[in-house]
Amino acid sequence: MKTVHVKLGARSYDILIAPQLLSRAAECFRTRSIGKRIFLVANTTVFDLHGIGLENNLSRGGFEVTTIFIPDGEKHKNLHTVENIYTYLIAQRADRTSTIVALGGGVTGDVAGFVAATYLRGVPFVQLPTTLLSQVDSSVGGKTGVNHPHGKNMIGVFHQPKLVCIDTQTLSTLPERDFRSGIYEVIKHGLIYDPGFCEFLESELDNLLARKPATLETVISRSCRIKSKITSLDERESDLRRILNFGHTFAHALEVAAGFKDITHGEAVAYGMLAASKLSRQLGNIDEPTLRRIDRLIVRVGELPPISHLAKDELLEAMERDKKRLDGTQYFVLLKEIGKTEIRGDLASALIGEICQELVSGERPGAGQPS
Amino acid sequence: MKTVHVKLGARSYDILIAPQLLSRAAECFRTRSIGKRIFLVANTTVFDLHGIGLENNLSRGGFEVTTIFIPDGEKHKNLHTVENIYTYLIAQRADRTSTIVALGGGVTGDVAGFVAATYLRGVPFVQLPTTLLSQVDSSVGGKTGVNHPHGKNMIGVFHQPKLVCIDTQTLSTLPERDFRSGIYEVIKHGLIYDPGFCEFLESELDNLLARKPATLETVISRSCRIKSKITSLDERESDLRRILNFGHTFAHALEVAAGFKDITHGEAVAYGMLAASKLSRQLGNIDEPTLRRIDRLIVRVGELPPISHLAKDELLEAMERDKKRLDGTQYFVLLKEIGKTEIRGDLASALIGEICQELVSGERPGAGQPS
Repeated sequence: MKTVHVKLGARSYDILIAPQLLSRAAECFRTRSIGKRIFLVANTTVFDLHGIGLENNLSRGGFEVTTIFIPDGEKHKNLHTVENIYTYLIAQRADRTSTIVALGGGVTGDVAGFVAATYLRGVPFVQLPTTLLSQVDSSVGGKTGVNHPHGKNMIGVFHQPKLVCIDTQTLSTLPERDFRSGIYEVIKHGLIYDPGFCEFLESELDNLLARKPATLETVISRSCRIKSKITSLDERESDLRRILNFGHTFAHALEVAAGFKDITHGEAVAYGMLAASKLSRQLGNIDEPTLRRIDRLIVRVGELPPISHLAKDELLEAMERDKKRLDGTQYFVLLKEIGKTEIRGDLASALIGEICQELVSGERPGAGQPS
Repeated sequence: MKTVHVKLGARSYDILIAPQLLSRAAECFRTRSIGKRIFLVANTTVFDLHGIGLENNLSRGGFEVTTIFIPDGEKHKNLHTVENIYTYLIAQRADRTSTIVALGGGVTGDVAGFVAATYLRGVPFVQLPTTLLSQVDSSVGGKTGVNHPHGKNMIGVFHQPKLVCIDTQTLSTLPERDFRSGIYEVIKHGLIYDPGFCEFLESELDNLLARKPATLETVISRSCRIKSKITSLDERESDLRRILNFGHTFAHALEVAAGFKDITHGEAVAYGMLAASKLSRQLGNIDEPTLRRIDRLIVRVGELPPISHLAKDELLEAMERDKKRLDGTQYFVLLKEIGKTEIRGDLASALIGEICQELVSGERPGAGQPS
C-alpha cells in the first residue's frame, strides 16, 4: 500500500493506494477515526461492481451503512440531485458525526462532496474514487460542486475529505476510453511539475496501458503526490494551483465547440496540452525535440477522436466567452521546460488563432519527418 | 464610529458601527479593497427604506451596483431563492471578483451569504444588517445557510464576510417588537460572557429602549465584540461556541411547540434564558438574587407573548426530537454566575420537565414577593 499524506494543517488527510483496498475499508476507516454512521453515495452501476462487497466489509467492521443511490451521468450533477440527498439524510436523521462516503467517479465525488460540505454546515467526507480520472484528479484538492443549467461547476465549495482510499483493482472494469482519458491528466502532472515522472511514464507507458497493478500503484501515487503538493500550497486556487490548468484553456474551448459530445474531458486535455506545448514552442520556451517528445508521449496513449469538423473560429469564440466570464484576461499555462510552467495573460489573439487552426487541421510537430 | 476587529487569521475582517453608515458605504468599501462589481441582495421593503440611498452612494463612489431582489420572509429562506440568485449572477456574468452584499435582516444575510459561499466556490461577501438581531447576532460568526422543507438551517456553510457595516440609523424604522426581540440576544451575550456589560445594560436599558444613538452604538459594538470573540476562538462550532446557545434549548422547543407562530425567536430566547437561569438556580449554580436580577432585566425589556396555551409535554417532545437529531444527548448551557457558563449533558429529565412546567405556567422567581 502506498500513502500520500496531504498537508493542510488541521485538515490534513491521507490518500491510500492499493489493489483490493475496498475490501479493507473498515480497517482503513477505523484507524482514521471515521464515525460509525456511514452514508454511502453511489450510482447503481458502480454499486453493482464494487458497492456490495464494500457494504459487507464495513458492516462486518461495525459500521452502520446506508446507501443513497444517485442517477448516473454528468447531466445529474445538479442541485436537484443534491436536494434529494439532503432529504434522504434528514429522513435518516444523519447528524454531524455521520460520514458521507462517495463511491464512484468524478460526478459522484463532486455531488457527494458538495452535500458533505453543506449538510449541517459540513460533515465528514470520504472519497472512494473508482475511475482513473477521479483517482488522480478530482478526488484530490478539495473541490466539490455541481453544474447550473447555465454553466458547468458554477456552484461549489472547497471541502477537504478525511480520507481518500484508491482501490486500483476497480480500474480493471473501467472502459478503455475512460482509462486512457485519465492517463492524459497523469501526463499533465508530469509535464507541469516533475520531469522524472515524465521519464517514468515514457518508459512504463506500455505497462500502464496494460493496467499492471504495480505500475498503477506507482503512477497513481506519484500523480496524487504532485496534485496534492500543488493544491496544498494553494488550497483556495489563487495562483500556483492555476498551473493545473495546463492545456485546459484549449481543452475547454474544444469541449464547448463540440457541445460536450464525442470527446471526453481527458481527450480534450490531450489536445489542449498539444496546443499549449506548440504555443510554448512558438514563444521559444521549449525546443523542437521537447515538443516532439511531448507529442510522442500523448500519441502513444492511443488514438484521439477527430476534431477536424470543428472550426478555428468556434474555438476562439468559446475562449472569448470564457475570458468574459473570468476577469477579462485569457490566461495560458505554458511550459518553460518539462516540469516548469509559466502563466501568460498577454498573448496576441493572432497567435492563439494560429494554434487553434493547427489544432483542428491536425498538424503535428515534425510531421513527415522521422521522430 | 466604532470598529470591532474580528481576528480570524487570513479571514479577519472589521465590523464598523455608526449612525448613517450606509451613506458612507463607498468609502468603507474602498478602504477595505472591495471590488468594483457589487451584487446587492435585498427584499423590496428594506430596499425602499435603505437601498436607494445606498445604491446612489456606491454608484457615485465608482462601484457598479446590480440589485437582486428576493422575497421577504423566513419561508423564502430556501434553495429555490438561492437558485434564482445563481441564475441571475450567471446571466450578469458575475465573476470571482464580484462581491455579494446583503442588505437586510437575518434571512437576507443567511441566503446571500450561502450564495457568496457557493457561487464559483466562494466570492467576497459584505453584510449590511438592518435589524438589531442581525446586527448583534446573525451577521457575526460566519454562519450562512437556508432551510430545508424538513428542517431549519439544515443546509449551510461557514463563510466569513470581508466587512460588516452596521448603520444604527436603520433601527429607527424597525418595528418595536423586532427591536425588543434583538435586545434579548444582546442580554444573552452579557449573561454568558461579560458581567460588566450586564451592569451597563441594567443602567442603560431605558436609553436603549428609546434607541438613543450613542447607546445603540455602544450596545451593538460591545455585543458584537463578545460574539466575535467567542466565534473567533471556535470558528467551526465545536465547543466554546456552544455557550451562545444559552436559553436556546428551551427556546427552540417553544418555537417548535408554537409552530413558529405568535412568538419571535428573540422572545423564545427570552423565555429560554429565564428557564435556563431557573435550572441553574435549581442546581445551585447561581443564587436567588442573581436569578431575580436576570428575571428583572428580561422583564424590563417588555411584555412577552403568552405561552400558557402550550403544554409541558409538547416542549419535552420537541426537545426529545432535537436530541435524536443531534448525537443523542440533550445539552443545556447553564450559568455558573453572571458572565460564566457551564455545559451539562447529564440532567435528569424529571428536572427538565419541572422547569418546562414552570415555564408554561408562567411562574416567576420570587413571585408575590417584592423584587
